[in-house]
Amino acid sequence: MAKRNSQQRRSRGLWLYGFHTVKAALSNPRRHCHRCLITRQAADNIGKSALSRVAVEIVAPDQLSRVLPQGAVHQGIALACEPLPPTKLEEIATGPQRKIVLVLDQISDPHNVGAILRSAAAFAAAGVIVQERHAPAESGVLAKAASGALDITPYLSVVNIARTLDQLGEHGFWRIALTGDTGQNFADAIVPRDLALVLGSEGTGIRRLVRESCDDSATIPISNCIESLNVSNAAAIALYESRRAES
Amino acid sequence: MAKRNSQQRRSRGLWLYGFHTVKAALSNPRRHCHRCLITRQAADNIGKSALSRVAVEIVAPDQLSRVLPQGAVHQGIALACEPLPPTKLEEIATGPQRKIVLVLDQISDPHNVGAILRSAAAFAAAGVIVQERHAPAESGVLAKAASGALDITPYLSVVNIARTLDQLGEHGFWRIALTGDTGQNFADAIVPRDLALVLGSEGTGIRRLVRESCDDSATIPISNCIESLNVSNAAAIALYESRRAES
Repeated sequence: MAKRNSQQRRSRGLWLYGFHTVKAALSNPRRHCHRCLITRQAADNIGKSALSRVAVEIVAPDQLSRVLPQGAVHQGIALACEPLPPTKLEEIATGPQRKIVLVLDQISDPHNVGAILRSAAAFAAAGVIVQERHAPAESGVLAKAASGALDITPYLSVVNIARTLDQLGEHGFWRIALTGDTGQNFADAIVPRDLALVLGSEGTGIRRLVRESCDDSATIPISNCIESLNVSNAAAIALYESRRAES
Repeated sequence: MAKRNSQQRRSRGLWLYGFHTVKAALSNPRRHCHRCLITRQAADNIGKSALSRVAVEIVAPDQLSRVLPQGAVHQGIALACEPLPPTKLEEIATGPQRKIVLVLDQISDPHNVGAILRSAAAFAAAGVIVQERHAPAESGVLAKAASGALDITPYLSVVNIARTLDQLGEHGFWRIALTGDTGQNFADAIVPRDLALVLGSEGTGIRRLVRESCDDSATIPISNCIESLNVSNAAAIALYESRRAES
């Protein structure tokens, strides 16, 4: 079974599109690239060296639209490539610098997860961890929302989020669940060590078992006229606040 | 011309959908509502009092899908209503409490503007100001991304952003342009008075004339491995930091 799954993964292939997204994929030595469809103008913008390791076809914009999902904002560039090889937890959980990882419990919208990856890259997070069964796979939509961050910040699928939090604890991470119903301000929950920040879906929140695998829980204070923040905005604020405390 | 435009606006009508969005619209006395299509289950969830001021038709989910744009996540509820009457700048620029307004220069994506409205409501902003010609009109998509905030936080269209910033200055607002290329950390730019936070589009940024109408400019510090934050995430962080300084 393991072998068959890995073969399926190898043959999946996907289209990435958008300027920053494709540029980051081409710069990532771990990304296996097949061919790049690009307009003359986009080719001039991205430059020869960025395109040096891939077969390039200069095309008209409507040829791009034909291979991509309807409405895809391709900005004149698309890349046929393979999904990234999986990253191991140990690769992101070790190292000398203070590390922050995001753990997403059943957040399924690729726009939200992509936006979270982008903020994770912006605040130098060590990785974004999702649950295999309830998270978006690598796709053009996810990668476009991530604006290149999919090829910068490790994106890990795990089978069991609670078990992964246990492992992060063994690596010395302090695990904080972000929810709307604690009495503690998130800023007061931050400690000067490696952090795992756990966010849940807007509908169902963080599941009980996942929350019980955390060391602490905390809330970003908001007014009472609205129920919650958008989850990618909550993640951005949590990352910002976690890094602010360093300076 | 002015009369014709106002008549066009009056007859425009729109569909709002999604639980939080419709609930907020029904709770807003300024929102003129026509009729509500709702599934039995959603009607039980939202409760009788929320539906008391509108004509209600209990329908099957596929009847909702038929009146709404393809793929609209309606959660069993849709409301036919009018756009909100325009808000005047004076209404949001005056009052005893410290006020924060967001000014969006040519941010056109309704998902981003909706998400910004949601964060604006979460951090009790006094309003979100956009330029009439380059901003999304009230729509189901905008309102859904705002998750109710369109009926909580005033959304103002103005003809000229630079002139509006001059007026905000006369009202005593300190105007900060958020851009990626200043030497000043945004947190250090915040002053304990009314604030206008100006954000530009991810492509072109804030236009020169708009930036020149600000008192200061500042940057949210991010790592150099990615070009910028998503604009709604930048807005969320800016609002969070502006309120944090109060406590």
